[in-house]
Amino acid sequence: MDISQIQNIVIIGSGNVATQLSLALKSAGKNIIQVFGRKESMAKCLSSKLDVDYITDLKKLKKGADLYVLAIIDDALLDIADHIDLDDELIVHTSGTVCMDVFEGHFKNHGVFYPLQTFSKEKNIDFDDIPICVEANSQESLELLLKLGKELSSTVNEVSSSQRKALHVSAVFACNFANYFYSIAEDLMKDNDLPFDLLHPLIKETAAKLDHHMPNEAQTGPARRNDQKIMNEHLKMLKDYPDYKEIYQLISERIKRKFHK
Amino acid sequence: MDISQIQNIVIIGSGNVATQLSLALKSAGKNIIQVFGRKESMAKCLSSKLDVDYITDLKKLKKGADLYVLAIIDDALLDIADHIDLDDELIVHTSGTVCMDVFEGHFKNHGVFYPLQTFSKEKNIDFDDIPICVEANSQESLELLLKLGKELSSTVNEVSSSQRKALHVSAVFACNFANYFYSIAEDLMKDNDLPFDLLHPLIKETAAKLDHHMPNEAQTGPARRNDQKIMNEHLKMLKDYPDYKEIYQLISERIKRKFHK
Repeated sequence: MDISQIQNIVIIGSGNVATQLSLALKSAGKNIIQVFGRKESMAKCLSSKLDVDYITDLKKLKKGADLYVLAIIDDALLDIADHIDLDDELIVHTSGTVCMDVFEGHFKNHGVFYPLQTFSKEKNIDFDDIPICVEANSQESLELLLKLGKELSSTVNEVSSSQRKALHVSAVFACNFANYFYSIAEDLMKDNDLPFDLLHPLIKETAAKLDHHMPNEAQTGPARRNDQKIMNEHLKMLKDYPDYKEIYQLISERIKRKFHK
Repeated sequence: MDISQIQNIVIIGSGNVATQLSLALKSAGKNIIQVFGRKESMAKCLSSKLDVDYITDLKKLKKGADLYVLAIIDDALLDIADHIDLDDELIVHTSGTVCMDVFEGHFKNHGVFYPLQTFSKEKNIDFDDIPICVEANSQESLELLLKLGKELSSTVNEVSSSQRKALHVSAVFACNFANYFYSIAEDLMKDNDLPFDLLHPLIKETAAKLDHHMPNEAQTGPARRNDQKIMNEHLKMLKDYPDYKEIYQLISERIKRKFHK
């Protein structure tokens, strides 16, 4: 491996991340030279979007590309890696939780190229806004991946495996769990004949506030003010929702404890 | 009271809601004819923004305005109402939780004018995007308030007291509690030397998704997929954060229960 820039890329995977990432790489002027997918229908679909050949058998993998991107579900990583035969070509996975070391012993040059966003196959995403977290087992590979990241996004960081795991847990709280609270609000509003979109402006303002304030500064609400009277009213209103009442009580207690030491 | 449109308004209160609402009313061409504040410094500050007289003694309240807006904290509502002497002038409060009935026996014509947004005195807000929830004890007053609401905002709804309470609880989940999860992410990222703004795009995308999907459809993440392996990894990572670990476990269980019946 002796290149100054990654140009020829093989995509291994044909799901949401593989699709969005390979489209972005193509837009950035890279040559996607081959696509692999275990399911022929999906491999075919992605290959036609990219106008490139696909394979469903890893024995037919092209050698000598500048980069192999393994964008598949975590559980399949090791199994797929076992069937890939490379010399010193650089290979990365795109997972938020799997350590870089998973490739130790398999591939001489390896790393991670993790775009921090939720993807769907249908909705094309502007990569410029997506933070990309990279890691590699050599300085040379790291520099190649940082360079590639900068061709796609304005935010590219070197992030270690343990940092990446912390980042992924943080994203679960800030996004998946936040959305669960949106879904509780959806249920309560539906039961009270209120259209959910009444809450859109407030939800967006709560997210937009983070441009100017850290969440710990931005905390508001009855628990933050320690307004027990309103919290009691709310618990009364939740009497028919034991699950949601329990969560209301726990989170309110935790906010009080955090901000009223 | 026999008017087709509200024009002359007295503002009772000088906090965040009073400030933002009275500035919006003035921009919409209304006459703010007087401001009351218990604290002289705050009353003075708001009155100078509106270029109008202020009072700190309710005995000096001007009679005969088309509307009196009581924008004060919930706990002070009844006490202030006791000191207001009106004939048949229309008076509203702006609270998310207090019932309209609080004015029963005090004022012949009364209602609620509740703008659903978080306010701060410094950041001026475009009212056009803010849902306004109105309620009144007569059809005539209701129509006046709906009309006034439409002069400020593109979303004006008649919302009953019990609906308003459900809406307020929903907003606590979707905003205050969501922000608490942002604050957990802030803590985890800080401890791992990661800049919090890496999460901004993901947080904004999670909120923006609601334009096209209801939260119950939009739910993603390890608990939604029932990916126990990743959840175990995350719990291991949270071993030094017993509080956050407990929340991670509870919310993950609830998401699993809700989506994998």
